[in-house]
Amino acid sequence: MILITGASSGLGAALAQQYAEAGQDVVITGRNQQRLEAVKATNNKTQAIPADLTSPDSINSLINQLDIAPTTVIHCAGSGYFGQIQDQQPDDIIQLFNNNILSATLLLRELVARYRDQAVSVVVVMSTAALQPKGGESTYCAAKWAVRALVESVRQELKASKSPMKLIAVYPGGMATDFWNIEKDRDTTTFMSADEAAGMLIQALAGTEHGYISDITISRK
Amino acid sequence: MILITGASSGLGAALAQQYAEAGQDVVITGRNQQRLEAVKATNNKTQAIPADLTSPDSINSLINQLDIAPTTVIHCAGSGYFGQIQDQQPDDIIQLFNNNILSATLLLRELVARYRDQAVSVVVVMSTAALQPKGGESTYCAAKWAVRALVESVRQELKASKSPMKLIAVYPGGMATDFWNIEKDRDTTTFMSADEAAGMLIQALAGTEHGYISDITISRK
Amino acid sequence: MILITGASSGLGAALAQQYAEAGQDVVITGRNQQRLEAVKATNNKTQAIPADLTSPDSINSLINQLDIAPTTVIHCAGSGYFGQIQDQQPDDIIQLFNNNILSATLLLRELVARYRDQAVSVVVVMSTAALQPKGGESTYCAAKWAVRALVESVRQELKASKSPMKLIAVYPGGMATDFWNIEKDRDTTTFMSADEAAGMLIQALAGTEHGYISDITISRK
Amino acid sequence: MILITGASSGLGAALAQQYAEAGQDVVITGRNQQRLEAVKATNNKTQAIPADLTSPDSINSLINQLDIAPTTVIHCAGSGYFGQIQDQQPDDIIQLFNNNILSATLLLRELVARYRDQAVSVVVVMSTAALQPKGGESTYCAAKWAVRALVESVRQELKASKSPMKLIAVYPGGMATDFWNIEKDRDTTTFMSADEAAGMLIQALAGTEHGYISDITISRK
Repeated sequence: MILITGASSGLGAALAQQYAEAGQDVVITGRNQQRLEAVKATNNKTQAIPADLTSPDSINSLINQLDIAPTTVIHCAGSGYFGQIQDQQPDDIIQLFNNNILSATLLLRELVARYRDQAVSVVVVMSTAALQPKGGESTYCAAKWAVRALVESVRQELKASKSPMKLIAVYPGGMATDFWNIEKDRDTTTFMSADEAAGMLIQALAGTEHGYISDITISRK
Repeated sequence: MILITGASSGLGAALAQQYAEAGQDVVITGRNQQRLEAVKATNNKTQAIPADLTSPDSINSLINQLDIAPTTVIHCAGSGYFGQIQDQQPDDIIQLFNNNILSATLLLRELVARYRDQAVSVVVVMSTAALQPKGGESTYCAAKWAVRALVESVRQELKASKSPMKLIAVYPGGMATDFWNIEKDRDTTTFMSADEAAGMLIQALAGTEHGYISDITISRK
Repeated sequence: MILITGASSGLGAALAQQYAEAGQDVVITGRNQQRLEAVKATNNKTQAIPADLTSPDSINSLINQLDIAPTTVIHCAGSGYFGQIQDQQPDDIIQLFNNNILSATLLLRELVARYRDQAVSVVVVMSTAALQPKGGESTYCAAKWAVRALVESVRQELKASKSPMKLIAVYPGGMATDFWNIEKDRDTTTFMSADEAAGMLIQALAGTEHGYISDITISRK
Repeated sequence: MILITGASSGLGAALAQQYAEAGQDVVITGRNQQRLEAVKATNNKTQAIPADLTSPDSINSLINQLDIAPTTVIHCAGSGYFGQIQDQQPDDIIQLFNNNILSATLLLRELVARYRDQAVSVVVVMSTAALQPKGGESTYCAAKWAVRALVESVRQELKASKSPMKLIAVYPGGMATDFWNIEKDRDTTTFMSADEAAGMLIQALAGTEHGYISDITISRK
């Protein structure tokens, strides 16, 4: 079973669709039940469980509702917020940090607590903003760098304890999803579709007996 | 005038002391008025203004109380929290993120909004944890990487707008301060004292007409 | 047509084999004609052209012998050398730098000079040693970091000139190939085989209309 | 005694001058005896020993001629070469790699072999080009990234063997020295002078009992 967060739109929804079409059992989660149901309705193999990943209790409840341990968790949840630092609003900054840093931290904490003795793959989808600083995206970069540090540090903990759990880091460049609606003037016509990114990611996640692709940057042509 | 945050103990207090002894006007801030007053009492050139850097209003009020614009701001505020990810507590994680990521973001936002047309140096003290991932320190690394991304991104914004404001990044290794009381079993006897780190930092911050040291890692011998 | 360097053994040979089996036209190159012929003999779709990538003339001659421009070049050539810095020998260090840094630089220079107006993908296979420093591997890390800097810098040149050429960076962890014969005491039984790594890489290199995987780290389980 | 390489001009010459004026014993080295003598002539505390750091024998001979072990070695030697990758010439690339990568490697190897049981500080001056990729400077970045990887890897070896030797990494931004003559059209009038950079560096290198500044980036205002 594959658990996908942030699955009500964008890359998460595209992954859910493609995995389900390939016959995989998929559980999708997100905050918006109505949007989750819309994704679920397009195929009948998918289960939808709403959850708020900024709440430890909600995460705990989500995992309790799973019938079996997932073989793969793909964490796509996250949000964007941009602008020169002096133009950003405190409430929006706080929401950005919660939606990206806190959610990834609390989810990863729960998954490690429960599954660190099992060969579970946890795929954390970030952004190329996690790989370098960028003017106009200071708090977004901050949020994504935080998640990258978390992933790379927890990897060391898993390796030191000889855990079979694997963390996979994914850094997609700009996709043409709702995510970018926030910036009205950005031309996204040559961006990858979420479907294209999902297709490449699914191929890249197919590991072998002794190896796997642990870090993937997906770029626009 | 030099404004120092997190000045009620550790590196911040040592910097305040040494700058004041050298005849500099110093304004110190921190959450704990009593501890600020204790630092202030040791010399008479220092002004203490309590503030909570996780609150935009409190930051605004702090800056409003300054008589003149600071030539240098040294942001030392921050806290630590450690342990394997599955052993960390949600409330402590949230406090860690607020004390480190949110405070640095809101302070830097206010300083850029007010002073970006002036030759103000903003020194952001992080940790060597901002420079690589580390097992047992996953959320602390996440917090410090976030601040580093913020600093490096805002630098690009300042440079693009030809602002005379400069951001200086400081990465100290372990010092023998109260910071480490949280970990009872860590031997800090060979750590640098805060006074040693402050002395080195003050020397390194003395720029020249055309240049300055923009990034400084301070290590234990 | 796919041009593969370092194709007489290891990952290069495995890639040549798998691409040829999939019906692709493949040109393989390497310094050792006899070993190239052995790889070529296992299938009949492959052309072998010996070349020394540390020689600009030899690279020029290699490219001149191609009937058509390659759609993809996979640069696997390289060698390893390890040990504490004080125990490494100058001649071996020089050979290491030539085999890794100089060869990648001269090849990339020639490919950009010839093909930068075409949609050629140049895949540069490095090592996870390109991603962090490592005691006991100082000169090897130096060599691989150099190649990474080269790739990331030339990417910026291609992007600035709106070239359709794409550079793809691949960072494999330890594989069970002849490469490691140099270190007799390293246990490679749980390493990926070159065949496993080749299979994962070929899947990851399959791009889409608007996107491609630009950076890939392949790790051992 | 302080040993300074690349001391016949630029930052190396400025450091020699300032240390000698401060009463320090200084040994300067470089390839050009005549230029070394010119630097030496300006003060009488300095000894000049010509050496070619791309030759292991020459390095060996240099160290043999020292009366005592240096307390600090400052490696400033290096050269620059720039341009789009397709416009760079193979011979110039080879010279660039030798002058930067090979010289630093062979010198560091010799210093570690001889002095790793002593509290010698080895200061390796690189460039901000060691810290990020840059179009138009691909091979220069490659050379500087290689040296950074070397320094950071050898640090791990020294730490693992509890060596008292310390490696200090210095990343200066553009200075107004002969180095830039190669690029006729670059305006260097607002660059730091070598004297300014030397002054800041000397202050930053003054360590304390338990700490030292291990990494320093010097930037233009």
